[in-house]
Amino acid sequence: MVSAEILERLSAVLAERRHADPGTSYVARLYAKGTDAILKKVGEEAVETIMAAKDGDKLHLVREVADLWFHTLVLLAHEGLSHEDVLAELARREGISGVEEKASRNKPAV
Amino acid sequence: MVSAEILERLSAVLAERRHADPGTSYVARLYAKGTDAILKKVGEEAVETIMAAKDGDKLHLVREVADLWFHTLVLLAHEGLSHEDVLAELARREGISGVEEKASRNKPAV
Amino acid sequence: MVSAEILERLSAVLAERRHADPGTSYVARLYAKGTDAILKKVGEEAVETIMAAKDGDKLHLVREVADLWFHTLVLLAHEGLSHEDVLAELARREGISGVEEKASRNKPAV
Amino acid sequence: MVSAEILERLSAVLAERRHADPGTSYVARLYAKGTDAILKKVGEEAVETIMAAKDGDKLHLVREVADLWFHTLVLLAHEGLSHEDVLAELARREGISGVEEKASRNKPAV
Repeated sequence: MVSAEILERLSAVLAERRHADPGTSYVARLYAKGTDAILKKVGEEAVETIMAAKDGDKLHLVREVADLWFHTLVLLAHEGLSHEDVLAELARREGISGVEEKASRNKPAV
Repeated sequence: MVSAEILERLSAVLAERRHADPGTSYVARLYAKGTDAILKKVGEEAVETIMAAKDGDKLHLVREVADLWFHTLVLLAHEGLSHEDVLAELARREGISGVEEKASRNKPAV
Repeated sequence: MVSAEILERLSAVLAERRHADPGTSYVARLYAKGTDAILKKVGEEAVETIMAAKDGDKLHLVREVADLWFHTLVLLAHEGLSHEDVLAELARREGISGVEEKASRNKPAV
Repeated sequence: MVSAEILERLSAVLAERRHADPGTSYVARLYAKGTDAILKKVGEEAVETIMAAKDGDKLHLVREVADLWFHTLVLLAHEGLSHEDVLAELARREGISGVEEKASRNKPAV
């Protein structure tokens, strides 16, 4: 089983990169370009995820979902947030029954 | 700190729902509709993530990223995959320097 | 040959619907929901266009592109714009050579 | 009033570019890369349209919708289709009342 600690290590690196010189890494460069550049990458990776799934290529699908999660983590870090906020939101919903969740904010529960 | 165990619990529930009656839950209904219906949700949540970020609404952004991750987990489960495949891919990249990763498959490393 | 006058008739109807009661038509209802609701439809139809193309289903592809153009026309009308602004922009680019256009704003020409 | 003949001229150029050397133009290069490369551009321009609308920047919005229409025309030409198929589909719907259209295929009419 793969440890989910990779999310913590990634978030720590992404938070640290916010103060790095744009020339030193891919992420530092992306931060320097600003929110719109990060959002374009999120959109791109979502489209590539959909295309990989349509191709039925599981290895490619995993890579594209990893790219998509990665760029949402960059987006969150850019806004001073992290994977912990997302996991807390998912855990919050876990405690609410599907019907109640639907009723309370018209969004899917499991 | 929020435990990443929520991903394991979620993946277990999503795998189990694959054999559930479509009438019993949101996810079972989504599986029954098929891959295209799941992909439309992934696309929708990506667009809503981008819109929430443009609004500068952090609480909304976290909810939309949670929706996006959730539906990618549904997609993975539908294909017999899980969060572990994504985390393993992210961990694999962690061991590769940015330059080497770029050279090897022309995709961003941190 | 199909006349492009359909775009003019459509734009006229869409402009007129802005003052209609939300209960009277699909578009009046969409206007009443606001820009975000229209943008979600644009995103949805783009995803469905991509999926139809991946399926290699030409009839479906034409329908999805029609849906996509239709909802961009709704978006334009909502902002007081129309197909004429888009056609004028396309015509403007026609007069610029690919190389010059690239140099002037880093966007594709034909 | 801008003439819609620009769509005819564009479609003629796009059809002709299918037989051009990939090195000679942006579109010839895109055709050579294949359907997936075109679809990524459609996805990108849809995201940029949504972002321009969120910014409330009308000039930018018109440019992004022009980019989006342009790349759907490239996609159509790559599949042996054209703007005429899209206009014919929009004209076909024009003759059907909103309610009947909804009932017949659960898709929006005006």
